[in-house]
Amino acid sequence: MNQDFQTEFMALAIGLAKQGLGKTKPNPSVGAVVIKNGMVLGKGVHMKAGQEHAEVLALNEAGPDAKGATLYVTLEPCAHHGKTPPCVDLIISSGIKRVVVASLDPNTQVNGKGLDVLRKNGIEVVEGVLQLQAEELNTGFFSRMTKNLPYIRSKIASSIDGRTSLANGDSKWITSEAARNDVQQWRARSCAILTGVGTINQDNPLLNVRNLAENDQPFRVIADTNLSIDLKSQILKQKNIMLAYSNDPNSKAKHLESKGVRLVNIASKDNKVDLLLLMKRLATFEFNEVLVESGPTLNGQLLELGLIDELVIYQAPIIMGGNANPLFHNPIFESMEHRITLKQKDIRQFGDDLRLIMQVNKS
Amino acid sequence: MNQDFQTEFMALAIGLAKQGLGKTKPNPSVGAVVIKNGMVLGKGVHMKAGQEHAEVLALNEAGPDAKGATLYVTLEPCAHHGKTPPCVDLIISSGIKRVVVASLDPNTQVNGKGLDVLRKNGIEVVEGVLQLQAEELNTGFFSRMTKNLPYIRSKIASSIDGRTSLANGDSKWITSEAARNDVQQWRARSCAILTGVGTINQDNPLLNVRNLAENDQPFRVIADTNLSIDLKSQILKQKNIMLAYSNDPNSKAKHLESKGVRLVNIASKDNKVDLLLLMKRLATFEFNEVLVESGPTLNGQLLELGLIDELVIYQAPIIMGGNANPLFHNPIFESMEHRITLKQKDIRQFGDDLRLIMQVNKS
Repeated sequence: MNQDFQTEFMALAIGLAKQGLGKTKPNPSVGAVVIKNGMVLGKGVHMKAGQEHAEVLALNEAGPDAKGATLYVTLEPCAHHGKTPPCVDLIISSGIKRVVVASLDPNTQVNGKGLDVLRKNGIEVVEGVLQLQAEELNTGFFSRMTKNLPYIRSKIASSIDGRTSLANGDSKWITSEAARNDVQQWRARSCAILTGVGTINQDNPLLNVRNLAENDQPFRVIADTNLSIDLKSQILKQKNIMLAYSNDPNSKAKHLESKGVRLVNIASKDNKVDLLLLMKRLATFEFNEVLVESGPTLNGQLLELGLIDELVIYQAPIIMGGNANPLFHNPIFESMEHRITLKQKDIRQFGDDLRLIMQVNKS
Repeated sequence: MNQDFQTEFMALAIGLAKQGLGKTKPNPSVGAVVIKNGMVLGKGVHMKAGQEHAEVLALNEAGPDAKGATLYVTLEPCAHHGKTPPCVDLIISSGIKRVVVASLDPNTQVNGKGLDVLRKNGIEVVEGVLQLQAEELNTGFFSRMTKNLPYIRSKIASSIDGRTSLANGDSKWITSEAARNDVQQWRARSCAILTGVGTINQDNPLLNVRNLAENDQPFRVIADTNLSIDLKSQILKQKNIMLAYSNDPNSKAKHLESKGVRLVNIASKDNKVDLLLLMKRLATFEFNEVLVESGPTLNGQLLELGLIDELVIYQAPIIMGGNANPLFHNPIFESMEHRITLKQKDIRQFGDDLRLIMQVNKS
């Protein structure tokens, strides 16, 4: 088979996978197509945890014609019994001749085993077609499976002079409506939105996804070492709210839990919630992607700990001037050699603002 | 004549004008073409003050064929005797039928008068074709003629978190070689490069244009209120160095002048060289464009005074962290309503860095 067609059909499967983005948590987003003689016989998208996998939907659509066809799937088919039966069984019984996958499943229960079973059953297997593109879709799932940490993306709105709020806290509005609308997609695909109690008490935000049912909202996780949250904060009236705290000096925990807030006790480090422990805990909740929307203190601590994987910076063509707040209070460098380097992934205009997506290079 | 052709021929003239950019100081850069029946009969570029104007060169190249032709010129032809005779005389005597100009000459000696003379002599005149593009070429000349101030462009290299040097002053190198090479063009087209004595004493820079004779270098103007410059600074061994000072408490002026440095005494304001007076003085020296290459103190003062017309920011994909120096120490705002807004003129990649050209909106 011509390599170009392989890429085209996998691109089609990736396009399908994108339809499930943000809806399959904690599962990865997966797409699949069944192709015979250059014709698309079946398409499938995994749309919700517990529902059919993409391969199953594509094979069902193809029906008996799947015999002798090629299956393109963005992630290695499963060989284990989870919420649904193993996909490899159906692939074998459907008479598929060839399976092309973008990436192996990082889940140690599956990694390579699915493909082994297929090969043992005489099915030709091709790996690694558009692998990077497919992994990018499920960067949080891969991070959790390989590092026991969510993929941590920090979104920051800044002026051209690197300021995120005035000294008095005023930051409404740095960026354009177009930029603020774009933030919705990052919230929607995240399992959790992390902020600090300072941001809650200062700005009283909701940090929710518009037009999404309360139960489907990502968890709003608030780092609040001493449970100093203002009990009148409007976010406490929402569902899916989690407070990560170390101490409860004013005995607020019981009251907060009675209001439906989920409390997670995390050991402190340097008198603050230990952020590495917090992130590990969020991974145990099957949180794939965490979006950080906070001020320079929490962002600086996460950056210093090497916990930020990606920055999404909306940069407005304005100057906010001297003594306004920066993006990060930490780390502090003594030499340019120690600077943190970034890899540009995407640059795009939203209204008058620039959106810069950058990967943080880990040292 | 079709409007599209008019635009094309004027674009050709503007392209020619660009060849003279930075070489015609204190004159503007001007290009001209002579066109008959869609054919280019002559092209001209003004290349150096005192030498022929672009119109003259284009008409000379066209020779007797200029009779009945159209002259396209990026700036209104002069009607006065300067270093060269009035261009309108030659245009009339050459038999040109039609003159198309991009912009009027902002020089009050000429403004509109050149076109009047042409019209009185029965020549058809069209104004304003690609006017903005042509004025952009000579933004410094226009500023000086209309506001008695140079066009002030500040070039700043910054990290993505809006830092320009570490707390200890270290800033080598924020940006890539490609970005640093691009800075050369801004220096070359400027009549002066302005910096503060702090930058000189801290970094000991030359701020010169590579591969350019010493006598042709732009003036390096150093704002040095109390003549506190380190006498061993390597910049003092260069030609075309100017110190703008208010006081001479250590009697250094005579010594500096004996080394060939030009001293300019400027009244102080708030115990610092009055920057508005300095800029007005620089305009009297026929300086069209001034490039600011300084730290956050001088940049902040200029910004606060509304003196910066344009920012050229080279933004490197790095994080320099907490307590590093910002782009501007001033102004300081109490409300987001007072923020300074910018108009994006150009965004481009140089190596791994972004170059953002932005016009500062004056309130």
